[in-house]
Amino acid sequence: MIKTIYFEDNKVKYIDQTLLPGEYKLISCTDVKKLETAIKTLAIRGAPAIGVAGAYGIVLGALSYKGNSKDEFFHAIKEAENIKNARPTAVNLMWAVERMMGYFDSIKNKSIEQIKNELILEAERIRKEDAEINRKMGQYGHPLISTGDGVLTHCNAGALATSEYGTALGVIRAAVEAGKKIRVYSDETRPLLQGARLTTWELKQDGIPVTLICDNMAGISMRRGLIQKVIVGADRIAMNGDTANKIGTYQVAVLAKENNIPFYVAAPISTFDPKAKTGDGIPIEERDENEVTHIGGKRIATEGIDVFNPAFDVTPAKYISGIITEKGVLRPPYEKSIKDLYAI
Amino acid sequence: MIKTIYFEDNKVKYIDQTLLPGEYKLISCTDVKKLETAIKTLAIRGAPAIGVAGAYGIVLGALSYKGNSKDEFFHAIKEAENIKNARPTAVNLMWAVERMMGYFDSIKNKSIEQIKNELILEAERIRKEDAEINRKMGQYGHPLISTGDGVLTHCNAGALATSEYGTALGVIRAAVEAGKKIRVYSDETRPLLQGARLTTWELKQDGIPVTLICDNMAGISMRRGLIQKVIVGADRIAMNGDTANKIGTYQVAVLAKENNIPFYVAAPISTFDPKAKTGDGIPIEERDENEVTHIGGKRIATEGIDVFNPAFDVTPAKYISGIITEKGVLRPPYEKSIKDLYAI
Repeated sequence: MIKTIYFEDNKVKYIDQTLLPGEYKLISCTDVKKLETAIKTLAIRGAPAIGVAGAYGIVLGALSYKGNSKDEFFHAIKEAENIKNARPTAVNLMWAVERMMGYFDSIKNKSIEQIKNELILEAERIRKEDAEINRKMGQYGHPLISTGDGVLTHCNAGALATSEYGTALGVIRAAVEAGKKIRVYSDETRPLLQGARLTTWELKQDGIPVTLICDNMAGISMRRGLIQKVIVGADRIAMNGDTANKIGTYQVAVLAKENNIPFYVAAPISTFDPKAKTGDGIPIEERDENEVTHIGGKRIATEGIDVFNPAFDVTPAKYISGIITEKGVLRPPYEKSIKDLYAI
Repeated sequence: MIKTIYFEDNKVKYIDQTLLPGEYKLISCTDVKKLETAIKTLAIRGAPAIGVAGAYGIVLGALSYKGNSKDEFFHAIKEAENIKNARPTAVNLMWAVERMMGYFDSIKNKSIEQIKNELILEAERIRKEDAEINRKMGQYGHPLISTGDGVLTHCNAGALATSEYGTALGVIRAAVEAGKKIRVYSDETRPLLQGARLTTWELKQDGIPVTLICDNMAGISMRRGLIQKVIVGADRIAMNGDTANKIGTYQVAVLAKENNIPFYVAAPISTFDPKAKTGDGIPIEERDENEVTHIGGKRIATEGIDVFNPAFDVTPAKYISGIITEKGVLRPPYEKSIKDLYAI
């Protein structure tokens, strides 16, 4: 089983995803700044995984302090909180860091050693809950998939995007575990090729049949009848169901609607942002143009041109057939089903 | 001015487009087999350009024969005719070769030397007509573009896809020559990156502002209001207006419709296939999976997975706002406007 990020011997261990599929390398990290860089460079990526990383960041901040001054100790933790700004779109990062800081506030009166230990336990709870949540999403989501289906996914919302098991790929894993014969179609997902590099890698590990396509082949695949369902992850979901996810998701959703194919989002409840009424309230990260003009360090595009490189887009709720969460599958109208979810 | 392919000193000269934008290299060719390989490897590509190449192929076949036997001479020409099968989707290749062979039939009684000379002249007419046709399309098409427009194009339907000037980019050039201030958005066009490599290169040469995006960023660009028009080329157009063009064109058309953006095709009349009643009658080339799994010779995807690599797709006529030809802009219903075109 792929364990993307975990805590062991007072170190955060994570797979460096920039090296996959060519090289599988486990990194040990004790420095919150190094962890922050790992998030920024996408060595750790995927909304739930960077949430877990953020929680561990607070732990590393706490553990980095070796003295006896509570003021200095609190300052070290406060400094570590900056990790929540490493990437702006996925809300799980802020959510996990804020949960850690809230918990920290509630145990401030304890000793430095106790606080360190309890922060470790809280971060571990976040990691374990994530793994459990993914399996619950799998159970709620897999009835949506039938034997014989071609299931298109975009980017990587798999084990590598979470602590383990995955969100969208978790639903696919649950369908396979339930005995369904399916084939996954993986958009390569330019510019950073998370589909070509990561989704195909982890499905291959599990022996799940997968066909790689370029992002511009999703349409013909649908028209040819190869795709019966689409499942993707999410980086942030507004209270009306508008969903930010990896760049290109919006296009897949429009094509699915045009071809009468159900389009599902699989995401833990921590992905919902109560502050975002609609998708307009979700910040969209723009990244360096080199990601588009170069592949593997090699220039592929003409020099001296302009580049637009948004890392995410927003899929309006009207294109989404259902949102698979750990508490069940939400259906439109999402204003209501999301509100009901919070009332549970 | 970029001259993509021309005839000089009994040689076919062409730009090797696999090397752009890194290297500009002009190849001299006297061997029809080598020319066929150039088409297959996309050193020469773009429907009108490979039409011109096909015509020159017949010339090279004729010139390769140095003897006095008319039977052997005719056999050499017949052999050269195979070049029309180098790529299956673009109909201009078959069209140009068939035009050359029809012309050859009409001059069979002349001397070997006369036939050689007249085949050269006919091929040169095809090349010059292509250049003139592109300028006519520009004149008919540019009124569709306004100052301030962002114009999205897919793949390369420019000077490099034709003898010179271009089809879709010809319309854009004509708009710029008419004094309109516009910006082109170029889809990079995976797997072979004709947008990133070729469209940006030739627009940069001409000083036309261009922004490169990945194929999965067309949707967000439209939703952000960056795109007011879409113009693409075509490899084959059925008699109902269904249009085969570079893979991904269908998706762009669906997105344009969803965002109320006009979607235009620019193509010479030689692109229409009277034998194809609808897009279902157009063969779609599938190419080697290495084009998807490797970039610049380097593997980017997991080993041992399946790959689907169609080189073209069909955009149903209902998504097409107009087809720009050298005889004017056709409008729906295309069954009628295409029939009327042939009646001119």
